[in-house]
Amino acid sequence: MAETWDIREGEVALERDPSDAPDAGVVFIGHVRSPWKRREDCPKNIGRAREAGGDAWIELKPAFAPALSGLAVGQPIILMYWMNRARRDLLLQNPRHVDAPRGTFSLRSPNRPNPVALSTVRITSLDPQAGRIGIDAIDCLDGTPVVDIKPWLETVDIPPA
Amino acid sequence: MAETWDIREGEVALERDPSDAPDAGVVFIGHVRSPWKRREDCPKNIGRAREAGGDAWIELKPAFAPALSGLAVGQPIILMYWMNRARRDLLLQNPRHVDAPRGTFSLRSPNRPNPVALSTVRITSLDPQAGRIGIDAIDCLDGTPVVDIKPWLETVDIPPA
Repeated sequence: MAETWDIREGEVALERDPSDAPDAGVVFIGHVRSPWKRREDCPKNIGRAREAGGDAWIELKPAFAPALSGLAVGQPIILMYWMNRARRDLLLQNPRHVDAPRGTFSLRSPNRPNPVALSTVRITSLDPQAGRIGIDAIDCLDGTPVVDIKPWLETVDIPPA
Repeated sequence: MAETWDIREGEVALERDPSDAPDAGVVFIGHVRSPWKRREDCPKNIGRAREAGGDAWIELKPAFAPALSGLAVGQPIILMYWMNRARRDLLLQNPRHVDAPRGTFSLRSPNRPNPVALSTVRITSLDPQAGRIGIDAIDCLDGTPVVDIKPWLETVDIPPA
């Protein structure tokens, strides 16, 4: 599924794509619905997505809908989604906004050995029967597969000073 | 790998374990090293782990070590790890600390369709050559597989008011 493109100056890749030999399997529990239909339309980050506006929601597969019980409108959640069009072999990357190549684990780039992205968003509406969760914004492509939803917890998800 | 045990009152499970039909593959990039050698020794959460003390670090597989470049001691990171002993079929769970069964996506339980856990921790030491990252604490079992490391970003990882 990964798209291939030329390596930029200073970028370093693994010899083999790590997805050739997985250690465990991920299931897609649903999909993100967003206003962004093409990669080039996606906002650079969640802040820009909030500024841009537009409807965003999560559609869960029906089997998983009962697992929404206990969530509430207004609550912040961590949405985990699978960047299925990312490259998984890059160790050093040279994105346009940095001066020199940097390690993948120091970046939030979608290109990483396991292309799981995280966004902390707020629930704006909730229809558990339909498996539909409205969220305040999202920066990824319409149709991006969802991997997990977790409650965001101030006591756990902010590092100690 | 999932352990089986009796379902508690009010718990609901999928008919089929979702890991039987994965949509994508995860690679383990390394392992967490922690003081906790048995499940029953693990602190309940990262706050308790900090109180308990003890050395904690991440050991990356050598191939992934170059991807650490750009990280620094003192920096907060989000550590993603794979709870390989969790159940993946539970939709409603009845953990001891809640009054009634609740949906998996409203809990931080390790038992979830994709058992990826998140901890926000601080880097206390860094040996990129050895692929070793010291962290201030961790609440999971020694040897837990690591899936990703991301920089924690205040502008992205705290929900807007």
